[in-house]
Formats: sequence, C-alpha cells, structure tokens
Amino acid sequence: MAKILTLTLNPALDLTVRLACLEPGAVNRSETLLTHAAGKGVNVAQVLADLGHNVSVGGFLGAQNPQAFDALIASRGFGDAFIRVPGETRSNIKIAEQDGRVTDINAPGPQVSEQAQEQLLKLIAVIGPEFDAVVVAGSLPRGVSPQWFQGLLETLKDLGLKVALDTSGQALRAGLKAAPWLIKPNTEELADALDCPTQTVAQQALAAERLHAQGVEHVVVSHGADGVNWFSRSAALHATPPKVSVASTVGAGDSLLAGMLHGLLSGEAPEQTLRRATAIAAMAVTQIGFGISDDAQLARLESGVAVRPLTEQ
Amino acid sequence: MAKILTLTLNPALDLTVRLACLEPGAVNRSETLLTHAAGKGVNVAQVLADLGHNVSVGGFLGAQNPQAFDALIASRGFGDAFIRVPGETRSNIKIAEQDGRVTDINAPGPQVSEQAQEQLLKLIAVIGPEFDAVVVAGSLPRGVSPQWFQGLLETLKDLGLKVALDTSGQALRAGLKAAPWLIKPNTEELADALDCPTQTVAQQALAAERLHAQGVEHVVVSHGADGVNWFSRSAALHATPPKVSVASTVGAGDSLLAGMLHGLLSGEAPEQTLRRATAIAAMAVTQIGFGISDDAQLARLESGVAVRPLTEQ
Repeated sequence: MAKILTLTLNPALDLTVRLACLEPGAVNRSETLLTHAAGKGVNVAQVLADLGHNVSVGGFLGAQNPQAFDALIASRGFGDAFIRVPGETRSNIKIAEQDGRVTDINAPGPQVSEQAQEQLLKLIAVIGPEFDAVVVAGSLPRGVSPQWFQGLLETLKDLGLKVALDTSGQALRAGLKAAPWLIKPNTEELADALDCPTQTVAQQALAAERLHAQGVEHVVVSHGADGVNWFSRSAALHATPPKVSVASTVGAGDSLLAGMLHGLLSGEAPEQTLRRATAIAAMAVTQIGFGISDDAQLARLESGVAVRPLTEQ
Repeated sequence: MAKILTLTLNPALDLTVRLACLEPGAVNRSETLLTHAAGKGVNVAQVLADLGHNVSVGGFLGAQNPQAFDALIASRGFGDAFIRVPGETRSNIKIAEQDGRVTDINAPGPQVSEQAQEQLLKLIAVIGPEFDAVVVAGSLPRGVSPQWFQGLLETLKDLGLKVALDTSGQALRAGLKAAPWLIKPNTEELADALDCPTQTVAQQALAAERLHAQGVEHVVVSHGADGVNWFSRSAALHATPPKVSVASTVGAGDSLLAGMLHGLLSGEAPEQTLRRATAIAAMAVTQIGFGISDDAQLARLESGVAVRPLTEQ
C-alpha cells in the first residue's frame, strides 16, 4: 500500500439540508442538516483510505471551525498536514429537495496570508519525502496566486513525489506548467486550460499528446455517465460504467481519481486500473455520500464496466 | 444592576448568507456567510449586558459545535450555565437577497435526554438563588415535554426568581400554568395560548385580567411596528415606536424583552420602562444585528416613542 498526501488548499464544510420543497421568502423546516468536512482532496483521501492506503491530508483550514475536519482526521487516522489560518473554512450549503433538485450556495473561504503559504511549503519540505504521491485538488483560496500554486507543484515534484492534479481554470493552467504526473479534467476544463477543442476523442488524443510532450504522464478525461478516456504514453483506453440509479454525484470524480491512483501506485494492469476506478466512481453515484462500503457491490460494478482501447471507435 | 440568568433550551447557530438573487436549482455564490450564536435567550442576554447587567446564559447546547457560543460567552464575560448534550446545536440558515427577501431554512436540534434535563435542574438548584430574575425564551428542543417545561418554571419560581417567559404554542400553554412573572407574546401567540380572541385592546385587557388572576404580573403584547401594549396590575400602557428604516427585525422582540426587564428590575417608572424598551427594540430594527451600540441614538429614539395609557383610544 502506498503513502499518499492529499492537499486541499480551499476545503469546504458541506451543509446539506433536505426539504420537501424550497419556498423562497418563507420559513422552511428541514428534518435533517448534515455537516461534513469536504473538499476534493479530503474526499479523495477517504476513498484512498478505504482502498487501504496510508493517507495524510493537508492544505489550509480556517481556525474558527475546524471541528468537522478534526473529527474526520481523528476517526480515519489521517496524518494532519493542514495549516490553520485565521477565519472560517468556507461553507457550501446544499439544499436538496424531494424531486431531486439541488440548490447550492457557496460562500467564500478565508484569506490565506503569504506567511501561511510559506508555512505549508516548510511543512511539505519536512514531511514530503515520506510520501509516494500527492494529490492536489480543488480551487485556490483567496490570497493564493496561480504562480505560487505552480511553485507548490514544482516543489512537490522536486521532492520526488508523483503529483496528481485535479483543478480547473487558472489553477489548472498554472499547474500544467509544472507538468504534473497525472491530471483529471473533464472535457470543458481541459479545453479551457489548453485553449483548444477537446470534444472528440481525436481532439483529446491531440491534447494528450501535447501534454505528454510537456511531461504529463497521465491524462484522465472524465465524461460523467459516458465514462472516462485515459491517455497514457503507452495506452489510450475508454471505460463505460454500468448503468446505475443516481443517488448523488457528489464525490464521483474524486472517487475516480482515487481509483486511478490506487491502480497506478499498486502496479495493476492499465485495463484493471481503469476498470476499478470507473467502478468506484459508479459506486459513489449510487450513494448519497461516496466511499467503498461494500466490496461485493464494488465487484459487481467492476464486472459491469466495459473497457476498450480508444482506437476502436 | 441586576443579576440575570437567561435560559435558551433550543439555541441555534444562525448562518446568514447574502446573495444578489437566490436561484433555486443553481450554484449560487455568496460573498458573505456569517455564523453567530443565536436563540432568543442568548439574544436577550446580549442586550441585558449592553444595559450593564450581570448576565449568565444557560440551557442545552450541542457538544459538537459549541464554538460560536463559547466565543460569545468568553467575549461578553457571561456566566456559562449550558448543559452540553450529544449532537449539534441546530442551524438556522437565513438567505438574504438584495431585494430584502429572506428565505429561512431551520434544521432540527439535538435530542435532549432526561439525564441532561435532570442535570440542568440540578445546576439551577445550585446557582439559581444568585439571580434576581430569569428569562426563559424560545422553543422546546426534541425530548423536552411541555410538562417538564412547566416544572422548570415552577422550580425557578420556587427559588424566588422573577420569571420572564417568551415562547409560543404548547410551551407557552404549559408555561402559563406556572404563572410566570412576565410574558411577552405577540397577538397570535397570546390568542393561541389562551384560546380566545386578542385582536382588540379590549380583548387583550380581558385576557390580561385572566392572566393577572392566575398570578402573571406583566403581560407585554408586541405588535411590531404598531408598538406594544403592556398590561400590569396597576397600569395599562401603549407605546408607539418612532418610524425607522428597517434593516432587519432580527432580535427586535428580544430587545423589547430585555428593555422591559431592565426598567422593571431597576425600579424605573412604568412609562419610562416602556419608552426605553420600545426604543431599544426600534434600535434593533435599524441594524442588521441588534444591541445598544450608540447611546445618543438610543436617546433620540426614546424621545420619538409615544407612550399613552391604554384607556385613551
């Protein structure tokens, strides 16, 4: 099993409320409000831990409301590499109605000072060499520049870590300059970062070729229910997940990323790597949350994944 | 200055998000999310502290998210009489749009065990005699019966405390059986608790007469911007607040209650008691929050309050 660090620079506290029907302007009574520690890297960490890896989580955490994160870190036995910063970790309110409609209200997170950024780099310099790989996932908090972010990825690479990057926009553009080991954009994120069309497989293959030339080893392009295209230097594969009834897509992309890391770091065959990663993502979709709670169900989902070389259209 | 305990059995963490416009089903980005410790008794406590009283706050608090309450208690120097119970204090989400529309989503609080209820009674038996008065405000949490609530008020009275009650529904019905010293319902709450009409002043006077006969000394009926009717055994007064521009009515009722307590416990003349209480409530309305931040503004508002005997229609 591998030793993996996940970095979430802009984690979020997810507040999920369930309502029969949201009535704007009225007093709505919710039967449940669930608070949980979230953010892409934090989600990936949980799936990696389910897969048996030794995981640490880090990034920047608001000092005023760390409880959900502290509790998760304690209960999962994660290493804690979060730098505490003044203020509150941002809250993302999800209002889920009976008919399936979800309204999101995303609040801003704390301002992260240069001092805190320096602290994270110092911590990484100390603990970084312990790890086999690092996942850097999610958006940039206020105060963190794309340039600093690029430098962070370069530092991680210089420490000999395999860097998996899952972000978008300016952060992805800056991150690509550091040539991470693996990226997992969706089609739009990839097109936006490279300023080129990525709708067709041929376009994606061209984009992946450019990225491979820059030093990116693995380009994993997610298409939701339509599956995944994975371009490595040695193979280009497509996986189609089995049809499942959708409970919530929360954490599906993070599950795919965790599954890819698992297969790659465990030295599994490419086809099996992609098959299991796709099944883990499908499993997330069948749940309100995500994670591997049922090995038998995962095995059934795996056998329902169709993997084929991308040359066979 | 008096020593006052406020009890909030079902406090809430208020999460206020500001949006240009709430779009259901979409991802809405909020520039601000404010978290603060709330609940009627907690609000009353803050205004009483602004008025110079020595205040303790108590009730039941979820052990999982006490930070906002702990911070408020520390910063205001309140005595802490909260019993910590397993689970999270409920969150009330307030979505405030630019056009003034407010959508509330209120979540349920923790279940309060009989053991925790017993603990609160034991604590009150120890610390109760220190206080001049107690404010019992807000709704009942899950697990607390109206019967137990009535018993709580009787215990407080037996300890020689003046009991001010601000609640509604079943809790008000049960609480009235304990004949508290003061109640502060609005017209609908009073009508509901007594099962009689209370629309006109004559009807309210009849209701107050019934309550006085049962042992309730002060019946304060709030009518929002239309003012307050106060029926005591010796006087019946009406106060009309000055016209103010409304920023938010949050905490206005709690401010009125704090102001009434202040005047009554300080031995001020009835007319001045009602005048200042009405001005403090009006001051709350001019703010996003509440509280007495500006003595000169309070004096101006006071001079704008019209107080008259209720016999002069």
